[in-house]
Amino acid sequence: MTGVTGTLVILRHGESTWNQQNLFTGWHDVPLTDKGVAEATTAGHTIAADGVQFDVAHTSVLTRATATCQLALAAMGQEWLPVQRHWRLNERHYGALQGLDKKATTKLHGAEQTHLWRRSYDVPPPPVGTDSPEHPVNDARYRLLPPDVLPATECLADVVARVLPYWHDAVAPQLLVGQNVLIVAHGNSLRALLMHLEAVSRDDIADLNIPTGVPRRYRFDDSLHVIDAQYLGDQEAIAAAAAQVATQSRV
Amino acid sequence: MTGVTGTLVILRHGESTWNQQNLFTGWHDVPLTDKGVAEATTAGHTIAADGVQFDVAHTSVLTRATATCQLALAAMGQEWLPVQRHWRLNERHYGALQGLDKKATTKLHGAEQTHLWRRSYDVPPPPVGTDSPEHPVNDARYRLLPPDVLPATECLADVVARVLPYWHDAVAPQLLVGQNVLIVAHGNSLRALLMHLEAVSRDDIADLNIPTGVPRRYRFDDSLHVIDAQYLGDQEAIAAAAAQVATQSRV
Repeated sequence: MTGVTGTLVILRHGESTWNQQNLFTGWHDVPLTDKGVAEATTAGHTIAADGVQFDVAHTSVLTRATATCQLALAAMGQEWLPVQRHWRLNERHYGALQGLDKKATTKLHGAEQTHLWRRSYDVPPPPVGTDSPEHPVNDARYRLLPPDVLPATECLADVVARVLPYWHDAVAPQLLVGQNVLIVAHGNSLRALLMHLEAVSRDDIADLNIPTGVPRRYRFDDSLHVIDAQYLGDQEAIAAAAAQVATQSRV
Repeated sequence: MTGVTGTLVILRHGESTWNQQNLFTGWHDVPLTDKGVAEATTAGHTIAADGVQFDVAHTSVLTRATATCQLALAAMGQEWLPVQRHWRLNERHYGALQGLDKKATTKLHGAEQTHLWRRSYDVPPPPVGTDSPEHPVNDARYRLLPPDVLPATECLADVVARVLPYWHDAVAPQLLVGQNVLIVAHGNSLRALLMHLEAVSRDDIADLNIPTGVPRRYRFDDSLHVIDAQYLGDQEAIAAAAAQVATQSRV
C-alpha cells in the first residue's frame, strides 16, 4: 500500500559568509551571502515546479538554515507554513576547528588528518572549552537545554545520534499521517538523516556529498521505507555542485 | 546559584495484575490491582505532604502508569495538571519473555540466564516476531511511529538510548525555566533516568531497585546537576519495598 504516507523534501542551505571565506562553520551562526539567498530562492522554484505542497517545515536554529527555509517557502508561495526549529537539526559542531580556514587547516595538520576530521564517521575534531565563544553553553539560544547535551565537538556518529530522535519523534509521525514535510538543514545533519533513510554504510557516507540548494525528494511506503529518492532540477548541475564540495580543503 | 531550576519527582507505578501474577510485563498493557491503586493514592498523599506543587506531569503510554499518575494527582488535588504521555517513558520491552511467569522462566532457563535477562545492562531477551501480539507494530497506540523505532526486545542500554532524548527535549527545558515536574513511569525507564541523573555505573545499576509507589525527589543546580535526591515518606518501609523487588524471580 502506498500513497498515504507524506512526501519529504530535504534541502541543504545555500552559501553562507563563512562558506564563501572557506572557514569551518559548525554551530557558529553566520548569514547567507547573496549567492546563498539566490540558491534558496531557486530551490523554492524547483520544488514548486515539482508540484509538492508542504504541510510543515523543519529547520535547525542556525540563521543560514532558517533563512533558506523562509526564502524557499516564499518562492513557493507558502511563506505562511508552520515551521518547527530545533537544535537537533544543527550542523555538526566542528569543535576547535570552528572559524579556521579549511586550506590553512590542511596545511597545518596535513591532508590526511584534516580529511579524517571532515569525513571520518567517528573521529571528532579537538573540543572547545566551555569558556570559548564557540561553546554552545555561551549561546542564549541553547539556554533551556541541559548543559550535558551541548557538544564541545562532534563527529558524524554524534550527529546521527542526536538527529534520529528528532526524526522519529517530530518528523516521522507527520509523514505517517500523510503530511508533506520540508526539512532545511546542513551538510552533516542531512548526511546523518540520509544515512538512515537510504541505509548508507559508515564507509560509503564518507564520500557522499549533498549539494547546497538542491532539493532531494523522498517518497515512502506506509512503513516509511523509501521507495523513491531523487534530486529535483537539472541533473548535470547537481552532479557538478556535489563534486565542488569535495574540493574545499584541497591545498 | 540555586533555587531557579524546578524540582523533579519520579514515581514508579504500583502493582499491576501481571505484577501480582509474577509475569514479565514489559510493553503489555495491564491495569493496576486494588493494591496498585492504593499505592498510587498513597504516593500522591506523600508528595502533597512534602509540599511540592507540580506544573506538569509526564507518563508513558501504558495504562498502569497513566492511571498511577492520575490517581496520584487526584490525591494531591492537582488532577487538572497538564500531562504529557510518551512511548519513550515505557517499560523495557521484555521480548519473548512477555507474559511468562518469572519463576517458571527461572526454572526453565536457569537462575543465571534469567538474572542476565533481568539485570544485565546489554543482554536483551530473545525478540518477538512482528506477527506476535506482543510486538508493538500490532498495537494501535504506536501507529504513528516509524516501525524501525519499535522494539522487538530491549536491554537496559536500549532503554537508556530512547529515554534520554525525551529527558533532554521534553523534561529538562521545563525544569530549567523553573517548572516542577512529575514523571510517573516504570522500573526500567526510571532506572535509565536515574542512571543518568545520579551518574550510576553500568555495574551498579544491576542491583539498584526503585520501589513501587515511593516518590523520589530531585533538586538541581542551575546546570541541572543533582544537588539533592531522596525518597519521600517512611524510610524503613522504602528499604523493605526495594528489597522485595529483588526476590521476584527466586525459585
